[in-house]
Amino acid sequence: MQRVRFRDPAGAVRTGAWTDDGIEFGGETYDRADVDVLAPSDPSKIVCVGLNYADHADERNKDVPDRPLLFLKTPNTVATHGATITLPAGKERVDHEAELGVVIGEQARNVDAADAMEYVAGYTIVDDVSNRDDQDREQNWVRGKSFDGAAPMGPVLADPGDVPADANIELRVNGEVRQRSSIDQFIFSVPELIAEITTYMTLEPGDVISTGTPSGVGRLADGDHVKVEIEGIGVLEHDVRVA
Amino acid sequence: MQRVRFRDPAGAVRTGAWTDDGIEFGGETYDRADVDVLAPSDPSKIVCVGLNYADHADERNKDVPDRPLLFLKTPNTVATHGATITLPAGKERVDHEAELGVVIGEQARNVDAADAMEYVAGYTIVDDVSNRDDQDREQNWVRGKSFDGAAPMGPVLADPGDVPADANIELRVNGEVRQRSSIDQFIFSVPELIAEITTYMTLEPGDVISTGTPSGVGRLADGDHVKVEIEGIGVLEHDVRVA
Repeated sequence: MQRVRFRDPAGAVRTGAWTDDGIEFGGETYDRADVDVLAPSDPSKIVCVGLNYADHADERNKDVPDRPLLFLKTPNTVATHGATITLPAGKERVDHEAELGVVIGEQARNVDAADAMEYVAGYTIVDDVSNRDDQDREQNWVRGKSFDGAAPMGPVLADPGDVPADANIELRVNGEVRQRSSIDQFIFSVPELIAEITTYMTLEPGDVISTGTPSGVGRLADGDHVKVEIEGIGVLEHDVRVA
Repeated sequence: MQRVRFRDPAGAVRTGAWTDDGIEFGGETYDRADVDVLAPSDPSKIVCVGLNYADHADERNKDVPDRPLLFLKTPNTVATHGATITLPAGKERVDHEAELGVVIGEQARNVDAADAMEYVAGYTIVDDVSNRDDQDREQNWVRGKSFDGAAPMGPVLADPGDVPADANIELRVNGEVRQRSSIDQFIFSVPELIAEITTYMTLEPGDVISTGTPSGVGRLADGDHVKVEIEGIGVLEHDVRVA
């Protein structure tokens, strides 16, 4: 089942089922246009992985890392399905990065890879929007990765069992395919990432791991419409404006 | 006035006054030993500044940056006054870093330096505990800076007006002075930091900016007792064990 967190017409936050007919909760079916679709969780942190597809490592001229390259996105980056995000002003290059997001379901620390999936609430879709002007100039990618709206995510939380091991991941800008790959190209698997991260830090329910992007990252411009699709999860869409 | 957030004997979270007699709230005075002193806030993010004292930049063999070097500590790093933090196992070098912490009082975005202090709830003390083994090997300092317990902070929130512009900052380990400097050696002032950070991201109430450390950073070992004092704020103490 695909779950979706939304605000109903009365303003209450609910978790319903995402179906072909709309959003179902409590015996009612809401038209998607009548409710606010929220992010799948309110993460206390988003732990991101760089260079987790060999093809993207290559296009960024980076060696494949011997352990996951980790970085962070702060909670202010969260944007919802259907949102228009505002890119930082005056930048030459702000890129899209299609990613599979892992939403944590239970507090996790020092978890073995063999047990890691027990701590996962579900999979979602993330666009790890990246301000390269600053990213390429800073030691830690804070201005580059944690500006407001830099992590559109959602709309659904999908059961990992519904996502094929070789699920396609694809990103289109204004209908044109920019990224197309498969999650079977991960260098580090989801369980390996959870094991590595929880060696150092506790993951809280709602925290998100964004698992890296395949090749084809490219520039976003004012007015762009972005559509990210992952097989077995669904479609995340957002718009872009420049401040 | 110095405020302190604490859990009273009934388990309720209160904000009281930190006085010579103890903690005062609602007409009662509690002995500090009878209550749990909490961190001054529950930050959604901790934005840290590297190399903000020229003397520390020098000891790390780094040039003085032309804009603040920013990095992040995640909420799982928060530890309280009086806590015993556990350092990651098997590391050669985990260091203390005495810092002045700025706790945000109101949501802040695109704030001018001239107005920035209006968004500050108060000042506190932070030990930016740093795992150099990993920090020195990673692009983004995630394992290095965001392991559980890596940010003891508190105990009080002090009015910025009570903190002299040349306040002394001092850190002792087991009674021995390791760091001693003054906040008048900041390369970037608190208002300049708030202006720079809020150009990119919204700061939320309770968020913390940790303003960098002076020279003298040094290794922590199992059983160490750390005491950080900043003039006009007070004293933060914590203990250290190795996993």
